[in-house]
Amino acid sequence: MRISLIGSGNVATHLGAAFKNAGHTIVQVYSRNANHAALLAYHLGAAPTNDLACLTAETDIFIIAVKDDAIANVARELTKYQKILVHTSGSTSLEVLSDCTPDAGVLYPLQTLSKNKEVDFSVVPLCIEDTGNNITDKLNELAYTVSKSVYRVNSEQRRTLHLAAVFACNFPNYLYTVAQQLVEQSGLGFELLRPLILETAQKVQVAFPGQVQTGPAARKDETTMAAHLQMLDNDPQLKELYKLLSQAIIKMDNAGQGRK
Amino acid sequence: MRISLIGSGNVATHLGAAFKNAGHTIVQVYSRNANHAALLAYHLGAAPTNDLACLTAETDIFIIAVKDDAIANVARELTKYQKILVHTSGSTSLEVLSDCTPDAGVLYPLQTLSKNKEVDFSVVPLCIEDTGNNITDKLNELAYTVSKSVYRVNSEQRRTLHLAAVFACNFPNYLYTVAQQLVEQSGLGFELLRPLILETAQKVQVAFPGQVQTGPAARKDETTMAAHLQMLDNDPQLKELYKLLSQAIIKMDNAGQGRK
Repeated sequence: MRISLIGSGNVATHLGAAFKNAGHTIVQVYSRNANHAALLAYHLGAAPTNDLACLTAETDIFIIAVKDDAIANVARELTKYQKILVHTSGSTSLEVLSDCTPDAGVLYPLQTLSKNKEVDFSVVPLCIEDTGNNITDKLNELAYTVSKSVYRVNSEQRRTLHLAAVFACNFPNYLYTVAQQLVEQSGLGFELLRPLILETAQKVQVAFPGQVQTGPAARKDETTMAAHLQMLDNDPQLKELYKLLSQAIIKMDNAGQGRK
Repeated sequence: MRISLIGSGNVATHLGAAFKNAGHTIVQVYSRNANHAALLAYHLGAAPTNDLACLTAETDIFIIAVKDDAIANVARELTKYQKILVHTSGSTSLEVLSDCTPDAGVLYPLQTLSKNKEVDFSVVPLCIEDTGNNITDKLNELAYTVSKSVYRVNSEQRRTLHLAAVFACNFPNYLYTVAQQLVEQSGLGFELLRPLILETAQKVQVAFPGQVQTGPAARKDETTMAAHLQMLDNDPQLKELYKLLSQAIIKMDNAGQGRK
């Protein structure tokens, strides 16, 4: 397919590379920032532009990977081309596009993407939704050219997935930072914690997290929890977080969802 | 070395297997529960016992891997053998043993260990501490026979490591459960989240978590955070957790420790 990318952020960068590797042609890359457009376009063998008015109609699909609150405006600008419009947002409904065109879709990659970190896109779950008509097959086919894990997900489910991703990725990553700060204050390095972090994630690749929950809260080890809270005395926010998470683990365990 | 294992839980099981694989002799396995002692002893080619009075003096070292609050009592029982006493606890000081014997040490594996999940022990950080004298070299040597990552860590640092491990492992694992419950309520499966969880942990194997923090809080995306909080309206505890963690990420980012 001939693909035009609207945006030059993390999602545009990784999706663009995956499409190119799968043999599609990236026609143009748009970014408000001319340098960003030029850089990504260079990598994808595409033409750069920083002017929506300069987009070519010689394309099959516009993939809109811009900030959530800019999607509607961009979509309105693209309506005149009468091409398929697809956005990549977890928390934006399909309607934002289907209000503009009958051929609209969503292609949401459920992964944490950073520009300078390559990912194996073939194992990234791609969540797709569309307006039906004749674009269901096209979008399906396009998705399977870059990923083995394609799921049909409606707008409400996608919103929930996005929320779940915050709990599964963004919040754990923040807790890694807390752990790093604690060990560094103690004169030790983050490298001591890396194997533990990796093993924790690897365990739930084959099990469910409730089956492998360990630690003082799961053991209802009140002595250790009290000692930990005392160590956090000088950081009330962190202390509150420790309490809240420990109580939740104890509650979950009592509800029979804990480790076996 | 001739090693006697006191305990038959996760740590005793994994340490015992690692020592055996490294060529040491596991002399005896003690557990209050005779069946547990028999099972682990069988796997390690050792003799089982459920009676501390039946331990043999024909050993070089007793490794005490029992619950934290039982360590002191067990150590007093073992004093008469005049052998090296080592415990494996993150939150118990060396003094608990050195009060009993001049040859005491700690061997704390910084990893989440579950009985039915094998781990590559050679990459598990082993945190060691001892009373000096002539056992420093012995403990060092023993540690390096099973792990490439051996760190000298004092009792206070080890307590901090144990607290950090709760933030790096136990709390993230609980958040995985939250994410699972959210997607399942929406009719989707946990398998959609597994690649995201793994990638999040893999990213911090080469970077620091502050450099790869993503998500609505890191972007200060107030619209999405407000929408997420509304989705959690029926779960006040989870809503509070979302607020607390998001505020902490925003605060961290403002302090210049966030993503670059």
